Amino acid sequence: MKSEKKIVKADKKPEEKPAYDVIIIGGGFAGLSAAIYSARYNLKTLVISKQPGGAIINAAHVENYPGYVNISGIELMQKFEEQAKSCGAEILIDDAIGVMKHKEEFKVETEQQKELLSNAIIIATGTDRRKLEVPGAKEYESKGVHYCATCDGAFYKNKVVAVIGGSNSSAHAAMLLSRIAKQVYILYRGEEMRCEPILCTHMEELGNIKMIFNTNVVQVKGTKFLDKIILDRPFDGSVELAVDGLFVEIGSVPSSAIAKQLGVELTQSGEIKVNIQQETNVKGVFAAGDVTNTPLRQGIIAAAQGVKAATSAYKMLTGKKVTGAW
Amino acid sequence: MKSEKKIVKADKKPEEKPAYDVIIIGGGFAGLSAAIYSARYNLKTLVISKQPGGAIINAAHVENYPGYVNISGIELMQKFEEQAKSCGAEILIDDAIGVMKHKEEFKVETEQQKELLSNAIIIATGTDRRKLEVPGAKEYESKGVHYCATCDGAFYKNKVVAVIGGSNSSAHAAMLLSRIAKQVYILYRGEEMRCEPILCTHMEELGNIKMIFNTNVVQVKGTKFLDKIILDRPFDGSVELAVDGLFVEIGSVPSSAIAKQLGVELTQSGEIKVNIQQETNVKGVFAAGDVTNTPLRQGIIAAAQGVKAATSAYKMLTGKKVTGAW
Repeated sequence: MKSEKKIVKADKKPEEKPAYDVIIIGGGFAGLSAAIYSARYNLKTLVISKQPGGAIINAAHVENYPGYVNISGIELMQKFEEQAKSCGAEILIDDAIGVMKHKEEFKVETEQQKELLSNAIIIATGTDRRKLEVPGAKEYESKGVHYCATCDGAFYKNKVVAVIGGSNSSAHAAMLLSRIAKQVYILYRGEEMRCEPILCTHMEELGNIKMIFNTNVVQVKGTKFLDKIILDRPFDGSVELAVDGLFVEIGSVPSSAIAKQLGVELTQSGEIKVNIQQETNVKGVFAAGDVTNTPLRQGIIAAAQGVKAATSAYKMLTGKKVTGAW
Repeated sequence: MKSEKKIVKADKKPEEKPAYDVIIIGGGFAGLSAAIYSARYNLKTLVISKQPGGAIINAAHVENYPGYVNISGIELMQKFEEQAKSCGAEILIDDAIGVMKHKEEFKVETEQQKELLSNAIIIATGTDRRKLEVPGAKEYESKGVHYCATCDGAFYKNKVVAVIGGSNSSAHAAMLLSRIAKQVYILYRGEEMRCEPILCTHMEELGNIKMIFNTNVVQVKGTKFLDKIILDRPFDGSVELAVDGLFVEIGSVPSSAIAKQLGVELTQSGEIKVNIQQETNVKGVFAAGDVTNTPLRQGIIAAAQGVKAATSAYKMLTGKKVTGAW
């Protein structure tokens, strides 16, 4: 049984020795799962994340991560973080702003001006929120127009709010707001919600969520704060809808700027192209989770992809085959 | 928002109406995750499993399922089962012994002589243990030759045992046995263990596990019970090794007999061929987990595949696109 703690090549000069075997950029489902496995493979592993936990930490209730009947997003991701640390991974709270090929290694630069070297990179940067692009949306951002119900919902106690979008995220935002606001509208361009059916059942039970389909918001208006939105077709006889707050849940765009820098191939919509092993077209660069061309954006899927990415990095760095029984 | 509780076709005669939208065969990581999602999609879902939980329930410690730092296999799978039930899935403790196409539906026959109809089938039957095929192995099965350290390890308190194999399962068996037996040998045909490195570290710390590499067991001998094994090359000057118990961990074979019956395409080694959506070549038949041609046999990977299989079944049955945000 050979020790595998040092897998950097023996013929390197000491000053060139990468500090890490694997640097994982992003600390959500994919990044932290990759860290758990990478560290268990005895690879020296660093996770760089501005906010460990990722997008899910804004979810009050997660009921679809297999293994937990009901848990808050933040609590679930604290468990992931604790597990990654207990396996030996390091976590750096910082933002990776650039990655470049540095001889045979990779150099990661961070916002806090650190320069970190590694033999392999796993990109698990997830997605950024898609912004509402109609007149007034930018002007009223944080003055009535919001992108996070968990963060900003509490301002709207007993007020009237609207949520734009028909996805799971939109449903979760509406359900959260329904317990704070007196009335919640969901505005969606489609004919019916495209969220999980069980969420529609939950929303019906709440009683104060009204869905308006086949409708787009074309303008947001107000004085100091937002006070109404303009629709592209009348609702209740008017294209004007008086709301105190508007929560935008119209999807997300892959956070793939760092990948692009590295020459990683992207899809037309900016997702990182990976194969079934989570390999990109650049040797030593792997990707996992919502930033990739994944068939389904779910936490459990991202976590599994993180595990595959770490396993592929391990195979590349050590030449070992892995056939775990569980 | 349309109700989706009834998705069976309206023009069917009542007596032909399938009782279930989805029948899942197998209740391990893949089967129960599929059940959680299928039920959340408001599909009428049944899991048929001889022993809910699957192979992992014999693991005393699971440390690599993201979300749990350390949990027993049985406890983890109880959580999966509870979650599947809380989402509305039914679980039948029985063995599916045959599945056939029945008009446009599928008919599942069970050991307890039930006949159950569904619109879609998810096969998540996992693997069976590969048997040791050397003279004496069959004769001494359960009389010294065992396939489950968790089940049978306790018979060997302060005795000498050997484990055959170099995988994670082999390492887990050896670690469990090392706390019961006075001496544990690992016999492996390879040059070094191929388990996760962290398990090698754990085994070293235990102190009573001796690894013998490049060695095969060619015969097992005894009187009423096993008392020695014959190696294909000498260890400590002899090809005979005195042991009280032998635990065989030489891998597994996919349990794909039911799939074969249905005309599902298999690989040469008997794994169900699936695409990235977990679809097989037979419309309406999906597969997930260790029974498939998966790139990595890990619980988290099987769970993610179960989710994808359920999502594909939902798409087929309802024509809906699913783009969940988590």
